[in-house]
Amino acid sequence: MSASAQRCVFVTAAGGPEVLQLRQAPVPAPGPGQLRIRIAAAGVNRRDCNQRQRGPTQAHSNVPGLEVAGVVDAIGENVQAFAAGQRVCALVDGGGYGEYVLAEEALVLPWPEGMDAAGAASQPEAAFTAWYNFFVLAALQPGEAVLIHGGTSGVGVFAIQLLAAMGHPVFVTCGSDAKCDAALALGASAAVNYRRERFDGAMAQRLGRAIDVVLDMSAGVHTEASLDALAWRGRIVHLSPGAGAQLQVPLAMVLRKEARITGSLMRPLPLPDKARVAEALRTRVWPLLGTSIRPQVAATFALDAAAQAHRAMEQADHVGKLVLRVAG
Amino acid sequence: MSASAQRCVFVTAAGGPEVLQLRQAPVPAPGPGQLRIRIAAAGVNRRDCNQRQRGPTQAHSNVPGLEVAGVVDAIGENVQAFAAGQRVCALVDGGGYGEYVLAEEALVLPWPEGMDAAGAASQPEAAFTAWYNFFVLAALQPGEAVLIHGGTSGVGVFAIQLLAAMGHPVFVTCGSDAKCDAALALGASAAVNYRRERFDGAMAQRLGRAIDVVLDMSAGVHTEASLDALAWRGRIVHLSPGAGAQLQVPLAMVLRKEARITGSLMRPLPLPDKARVAEALRTRVWPLLGTSIRPQVAATFALDAAAQAHRAMEQADHVGKLVLRVAG
Repeated sequence: MSASAQRCVFVTAAGGPEVLQLRQAPVPAPGPGQLRIRIAAAGVNRRDCNQRQRGPTQAHSNVPGLEVAGVVDAIGENVQAFAAGQRVCALVDGGGYGEYVLAEEALVLPWPEGMDAAGAASQPEAAFTAWYNFFVLAALQPGEAVLIHGGTSGVGVFAIQLLAAMGHPVFVTCGSDAKCDAALALGASAAVNYRRERFDGAMAQRLGRAIDVVLDMSAGVHTEASLDALAWRGRIVHLSPGAGAQLQVPLAMVLRKEARITGSLMRPLPLPDKARVAEALRTRVWPLLGTSIRPQVAATFALDAAAQAHRAMEQADHVGKLVLRVAG
Repeated sequence: MSASAQRCVFVTAAGGPEVLQLRQAPVPAPGPGQLRIRIAAAGVNRRDCNQRQRGPTQAHSNVPGLEVAGVVDAIGENVQAFAAGQRVCALVDGGGYGEYVLAEEALVLPWPEGMDAAGAASQPEAAFTAWYNFFVLAALQPGEAVLIHGGTSGVGVFAIQLLAAMGHPVFVTCGSDAKCDAALALGASAAVNYRRERFDGAMAQRLGRAIDVVLDMSAGVHTEASLDALAWRGRIVHLSPGAGAQLQVPLAMVLRKEARITGSLMRPLPLPDKARVAEALRTRVWPLLGTSIRPQVAATFALDAAAQAHRAMEQADHVGKLVLRVAG
């Protein structure tokens, strides 16, 4: 039987990791099309740190956490494909830093076979983000070459493995030689330490391949070099808004390459768009989990150590994902 | 019978309009898939001025002129749809400022019914540019609202008429009140004098409509305001590279709107892409010429007054197209 109260980590003020506080909260009831998940583990994402820095809001839950793995605990009306007791993972609209969370059925996926709770919880956000941006926004075509700025981020370690398994040449930039080595071990074709070298047209030429799609988590720092490395009709997709960062590139090069520059945010994406991504993940990506794509969990933290997890995220010394262990 | 020599206007050096010089040149023979056109009139485009400023090159013909109307004079092997004596207009790869020019059959279209030579010569470049950028690059959807920076340019006056006829709300910016009036007379829903007001989000709200697609001929001057006026998933397409202009916009707004920023150049576009545009023009746009879309010829010049035409283009006091009259 479910509890009526749970422990959740709240953003109690705008500020550093110390504003994250464990508090009691009601256990929510699933609405139509929703299911409630008893959380085993929850992924930590940079967006959670951004949310903490912005502070409490009326716009959405003040409990961070965009992805979980756990057990279905209750289902709302019209839920078709899941029943209580099933092990699942899900993309959620906040609330992951707790013991129970509601998820839209359309965004729930099977717990990947053979993965532990931390591994399973570390998949959804990276998987949705990688698929949406590469295959929907950038319309990545078979054989096209990609460049990922932020190769050992959570999205990076997932995307390297996914795209390499699908036969794409995958180039990455990272902030240290150790991170470059880790990216190569995951299947990157080449990894460049951006503290020493720019990934520009000359680098692309040296590596024998212009870039078709750039995924940029560097808030525009590398955009001009990326554009220089880009093939005709290449696409650059930004995932990090930076803190008021300006996107700045020579217009003539955009025209000459017919380059497309865009960016996206996963959380505000409408449910139907997310549901279409989930469907693609189910058929195209989930069969690769545990074999071609292995979870890259850098560290786990107890729920009451969420502040430590945020410190680690902001330190950025890790490769892959940080995860909160909640139960089991 | 055709002459063996012709008079052409050459770019003889990098510089002002005075470097345009009338000289004798051979009349070229059409290759396979090409036809030769005896030119009646040739459109003058801003690109021609850019070419003149850059000076002579080995890369392409040093005779400017990207669009003509005239009579088919000779056909090469494998030309299927045209025969000598037919009146046509065409997008050409330079050479329009002369008496004869070669054209790829795939880029030749019928002389629009009821138009005079200047009118017919003023259609191809604007038509190819408007169609490619709105319908191919920006994938304009039925009912979507557009904003054109440069509303009374050659492309502008064509696009206003085309898109208004197709049911799109068309907003424009122009550099004077007189140009705004001209744009409204052509069917624009609203016209803003950019010397007095910015077309930003507040303006879009006042006009009751966020913008889905922006066509920008202002070399990035308006990009931030355009982005502010843009609907979610809107597109901004740049046509003017400026002189080393930087595209600069707040990255967070790109992400929040999932905006797509791109740009294109028509001349280097591969022939198959241009041919697909020609096919669309033939079926979708040519039936509107002379009725919904009327030629907007601001002034005509004799071939030996091409320098004057360039002065007028660079003065930019005109509305619509400048055209060279070549023959009867």
